[in-house]
Amino acid sequence: MSDTTRYERGVAKLNEIYGEKGKLLLDSLQDIAPDLGRYVAEFAFGDIHCRPGLDPRSREIATVAALTALGTAGRQLRAHIHAALNVGCTQQEIIEILMQIALYAGFPAALNGIEAAREVFQERSQNK
Amino acid sequence: MSDTTRYERGVAKLNEIYGEKGKLLLDSLQDIAPDLGRYVAEFAFGDIHCRPGLDPRSREIATVAALTALGTAGRQLRAHIHAALNVGCTQQEIIEILMQIALYAGFPAALNGIEAAREVFQERSQNK
Amino acid sequence: MSDTTRYERGVAKLNEIYGEKGKLLLDSLQDIAPDLGRYVAEFAFGDIHCRPGLDPRSREIATVAALTALGTAGRQLRAHIHAALNVGCTQQEIIEILMQIALYAGFPAALNGIEAAREVFQERSQNK
Amino acid sequence: MSDTTRYERGVAKLNEIYGEKGKLLLDSLQDIAPDLGRYVAEFAFGDIHCRPGLDPRSREIATVAALTALGTAGRQLRAHIHAALNVGCTQQEIIEILMQIALYAGFPAALNGIEAAREVFQERSQNK
Amino acid sequence: MSDTTRYERGVAKLNEIYGEKGKLLLDSLQDIAPDLGRYVAEFAFGDIHCRPGLDPRSREIATVAALTALGTAGRQLRAHIHAALNVGCTQQEIIEILMQIALYAGFPAALNGIEAAREVFQERSQNK
Amino acid sequence: MSDTTRYERGVAKLNEIYGEKGKLLLDSLQDIAPDLGRYVAEFAFGDIHCRPGLDPRSREIATVAALTALGTAGRQLRAHIHAALNVGCTQQEIIEILMQIALYAGFPAALNGIEAAREVFQERSQNK
Repeated sequence: MSDTTRYERGVAKLNEIYGEKGKLLLDSLQDIAPDLGRYVAEFAFGDIHCRPGLDPRSREIATVAALTALGTAGRQLRAHIHAALNVGCTQQEIIEILMQIALYAGFPAALNGIEAAREVFQERSQNK
Repeated sequence: MSDTTRYERGVAKLNEIYGEKGKLLLDSLQDIAPDLGRYVAEFAFGDIHCRPGLDPRSREIATVAALTALGTAGRQLRAHIHAALNVGCTQQEIIEILMQIALYAGFPAALNGIEAAREVFQERSQNK
Repeated sequence: MSDTTRYERGVAKLNEIYGEKGKLLLDSLQDIAPDLGRYVAEFAFGDIHCRPGLDPRSREIATVAALTALGTAGRQLRAHIHAALNVGCTQQEIIEILMQIALYAGFPAALNGIEAAREVFQERSQNK
Repeated sequence: MSDTTRYERGVAKLNEIYGEKGKLLLDSLQDIAPDLGRYVAEFAFGDIHCRPGLDPRSREIATVAALTALGTAGRQLRAHIHAALNVGCTQQEIIEILMQIALYAGFPAALNGIEAAREVFQERSQNK
Repeated sequence: MSDTTRYERGVAKLNEIYGEKGKLLLDSLQDIAPDLGRYVAEFAFGDIHCRPGLDPRSREIATVAALTALGTAGRQLRAHIHAALNVGCTQQEIIEILMQIALYAGFPAALNGIEAAREVFQERSQNK
Repeated sequence: MSDTTRYERGVAKLNEIYGEKGKLLLDSLQDIAPDLGRYVAEFAFGDIHCRPGLDPRSREIATVAALTALGTAGRQLRAHIHAALNVGCTQQEIIEILMQIALYAGFPAALNGIEAAREVFQERSQNK
């Protein structure tokens, strides 16, 4: 597969999962690190997120769980809570995932995840 | 709900998800930190893992993802790869989750997750 | 012990350690994740913080040290610096704990801890 | 204060806290990174651990808590569980500290801390 | 070497690497943790950063990489991106280091590093 | 650029940096996660490590620093200490990088890095 195909496939996946926010991420990197944006599209979304072996909902559950446990990526956590909701998770399922993480990374990680979820839920309710 | 009920419900959940390994964990804590074992049963499994709002397969996907991203809990990661397989994930889905984590916590986290998965898959193939 | 007793005991402990901030935390979770608030009260404070085997001052020293080392939970670190002062640590002891963490988690963790302490000390001096 | 004084004061503190294990650490660095050993003695123990503002027991509680939360330093965690016992903590207090960390860094961190404590307790019971 | 010499040497190194920001850091600690500022000068800069075995550019590459990977020290990361540029790295090299970290600590760590770099590059372009 | 070119370029880079160990890594993934091996070759080494904007020695300094700071990837740290030596770092420079990390991620991270370096140095001295 050529790099162009991978890039286009990745941008399509980004749009499918994130809506407009995907394009905004790539645009924000254009002036300072355009190749990092290209790798996000080609590799992260064109290669990995497009793989057939795991459904998109499970991919986003894994991603939300990992980012909540790490606790160092608030912006990306909010983006992937959006994504998880976009591919079929309910708000209650997001809350359950975050509470599950309290067991494995501690209550502060879960509580910070809840604040991220609160922002995302409010943004979506205002955009309805 | 009384503590006894929570404990019994947690032990039942531990058995359902882990099989015999659940009992081994509790037994191994008996001499040194029995109350920690009790909290694992009562709170982690009796309270959280028994909640109805998220299916067991999704709970284990979240747990495997979180533990792989943290990279500090090899023993628990192997236990939860077993658990994920016990509640319906396929071996290929486990591999997909681990590759997904490469994006969010780096290749070494994913590669170490693969070694954990290799041990689990071999143990299960020998026990068939 | 029934869940009600654990909850009530936990809320009492939260009030004892945090003052009003404990109730604010539970209230803030009421609309989005009330059960997480309940677990914080029942398990974190009703079960663990109420255990007799370690004095409250030592529990808060351990908590401040852990949160400073992790570096991912600024809000909780500030809350537990308040709590440590409430249960008998002096401001100088807090600073000593944070400097101690420089050895084990690096200078940036300690320096960020100092900024958290500065906020807490200022808030308390304004409320006198 | 001269570097010689700091070094000698640090070695004395290392011996006081760790017994023979302190000398073993410095010796083990002699062939590969002697200056790192020197900094451990001069700065970590000669400067920080000798400060008067916090008692040795509280310093070790903070250290055990931080290392358990980080989860990346098993050898150092075992050394500081020894040290905590040497400066006045009881075995039960160590277990309480580790359980406390379950709240802030998750159950796997606490469970791995328990395994470290088990090794230390056994070693000390055999050396009696 | 006496502590005074180490302090003075460290302050000189701080000025050389950071310019005025070094003094600002020490000043900001003066009221709350002056000894931590002293250790930053004496040990971090007077001892380690002054060692002859590694050139300053390589030291800052290592520091930027470590802080980006940890993801918990935004303020220090920005300071060390400044420092790396001050000791000879180009802006493009900074971006390359950050992209390299995507492999070892994940894309969110790299993307957050890019945001830190953006702030630093803008600040420097405004001060020209 | 086609995927085949990226793969071949990545394998050549892996061989250049790691010698035989690169092939061993890819071989070890063949039975369990061959696509992860392919991504390591295509993306990590074919895309990122081949970029012209940063010299290979600086890339390995950044990688050794990041892995030492994370503290969760002993096997990969040893591989990249080998790689750093292969692309022009001296053993003394490796030790300096590890001591530098003590400042930013704590002494235990540095001490564990020293143990990794010891293993690598011994292996290389035996293979001479």
